[in-house]
Amino acid sequence: VSGLEAPLGPGREFDLIRSLVRQWGPLASGIGDDAAVLGIGAGEQLVVSTDTSVEDVHFRRGWLTPREIGYRAAAAAVSDLAAMAARPVGMVIAMSLPETWRGDVLEIGAGIGECSEQTSIPIVGGDMSKSHELSITLTVLGGAIRPLRRNGARPGDLVYVTGRLGGPQRALEAWLAGDTPRSRDRERFARPVPRVREAMWLAEHGATAAIDISDGLVSDLAHIAAASNVDVGIDLERLPLVDGASSRQAVASGEEYELAITAPHALDTAEFERQFGIPLTSIGQVAASQTQPRFLAREGGTFVDLSGGYDHFSS
Amino acid sequence: VSGLEAPLGPGREFDLIRSLVRQWGPLASGIGDDAAVLGIGAGEQLVVSTDTSVEDVHFRRGWLTPREIGYRAAAAAVSDLAAMAARPVGMVIAMSLPETWRGDVLEIGAGIGECSEQTSIPIVGGDMSKSHELSITLTVLGGAIRPLRRNGARPGDLVYVTGRLGGPQRALEAWLAGDTPRSRDRERFARPVPRVREAMWLAEHGATAAIDISDGLVSDLAHIAAASNVDVGIDLERLPLVDGASSRQAVASGEEYELAITAPHALDTAEFERQFGIPLTSIGQVAASQTQPRFLAREGGTFVDLSGGYDHFSS
Repeated sequence: VSGLEAPLGPGREFDLIRSLVRQWGPLASGIGDDAAVLGIGAGEQLVVSTDTSVEDVHFRRGWLTPREIGYRAAAAAVSDLAAMAARPVGMVIAMSLPETWRGDVLEIGAGIGECSEQTSIPIVGGDMSKSHELSITLTVLGGAIRPLRRNGARPGDLVYVTGRLGGPQRALEAWLAGDTPRSRDRERFARPVPRVREAMWLAEHGATAAIDISDGLVSDLAHIAAASNVDVGIDLERLPLVDGASSRQAVASGEEYELAITAPHALDTAEFERQFGIPLTSIGQVAASQTQPRFLAREGGTFVDLSGGYDHFSS
Repeated sequence: VSGLEAPLGPGREFDLIRSLVRQWGPLASGIGDDAAVLGIGAGEQLVVSTDTSVEDVHFRRGWLTPREIGYRAAAAAVSDLAAMAARPVGMVIAMSLPETWRGDVLEIGAGIGECSEQTSIPIVGGDMSKSHELSITLTVLGGAIRPLRRNGARPGDLVYVTGRLGGPQRALEAWLAGDTPRSRDRERFARPVPRVREAMWLAEHGATAAIDISDGLVSDLAHIAAASNVDVGIDLERLPLVDGASSRQAVASGEEYELAITAPHALDTAEFERQFGIPLTSIGQVAASQTQPRFLAREGGTFVDLSGGYDHFSS
């Protein structure tokens, strides 16, 4: 079964899917059966993650173009494979679509296709439904010999972060204040780049734990602390910031899709930056937990316990 | 990482997930990292499918209990593994939830758990979001040495269907007319049983193509005809009907989650019924396609071309 000749039956749903598959061309494969069939490399474990983007919860229509909405939904999902240092193997797309979005399907699909191409992850299947709000659930599959988990951080490990933080938060603050975000901040929100190859490099160079920064550094490092049963402390003054961001914006900024990792020794940050064109910054250290796992941030001379955190249900 | 002690960070979303994971007990495993990690058997291919259930599109709140909504969403997804004759390996759950459904999460989860237990498919991960309508996307993973596809039907093959058809259609017709469906029809809508073990038996006994009846026999056999480039003809008088159903109701009835299969020789239907407690019925035959693939139904002495079909977008 070729993606270009997906043998679907008649009907409007299938016409839409056919148009998408035609547009994706070689990015799509094996679509048109009850399920997709994939090979996983010998010795690899299967890594799987699912991620939903809902209109007015994860984005607003006025903020992003349909293409950006598709791209970003896919990038958020693929970023979870990066956080496990997994090789992308395939994605399935469940799209629920109100009438008012019908004309944008191909543009949303084009955005998903861009991410598929950028991160070399084939589109292998999907489901399309009617709904009353736009909702895109991407499930991504990867293969990894040794997946990089959240629970491997050990006392004495160093804490690193990829890229520069704060852009998505600054874009959000601008939109919520009724302003137009600076284009560089907007770009960081609309076009996050899953750090797939970077993650493999970090795993090869000894990383012990990793997470992608989707809820904000505070919340995500608290996850590593909890999973690894350690204290994680960072120095706010060492955070790599996008131009104009404060360190408070940087730690609160979700939807970054940069990686936070721990490693038992200093990493060659110059070599990393040379290979990937983004910085790798040492921002803190892991310590034995005294009572319960904590996430601590040092500002000036004192550590503040920030083990709370942002989540979608708290607002 | 044990499912019972999922090391998630703080926050309301995570409290919900923790409650679900606690309720699922041994049915859930490995939840709490960026992605789940699974093993696939040596020599097996990975089979993956995604399926969304949206309130007021796939069900109405007044029709089903929250537990049934969860069960049914999971059963619909697992049925796609059955249609490929795949061994269930794991499922990930993306649930988008409005405030008005918050109190029902554990019941929805209990229903998903029932299906997980019934079909031996572990719950390995998920995502939970806010939304304005209840939407559940289940992505299911399976393993199969030789997945059973839609495109294997050959001229001369016999067409079989499992179980008895028409119940979901009768239940829907009753609800839409403002009546209460008979409990046996309602049960067929609310509690479809994925034919996982049956599918493996059929594959072992020579089945050449399979599909699960989710859109209705008309539409689904048209998919097999299109994918296999053959004509598929059935005899309406031979359809296995639930008590009280007409053959017209049976061919239109979607959401059956029975299997339609083709096989090059007669199957031992008595042995099938003995093993699984449901009938396996020969309902027609595959023929070479003259011009384009067709689905034909014989009623009385004549064949009618029903190559059209129902889909969610046509209504």
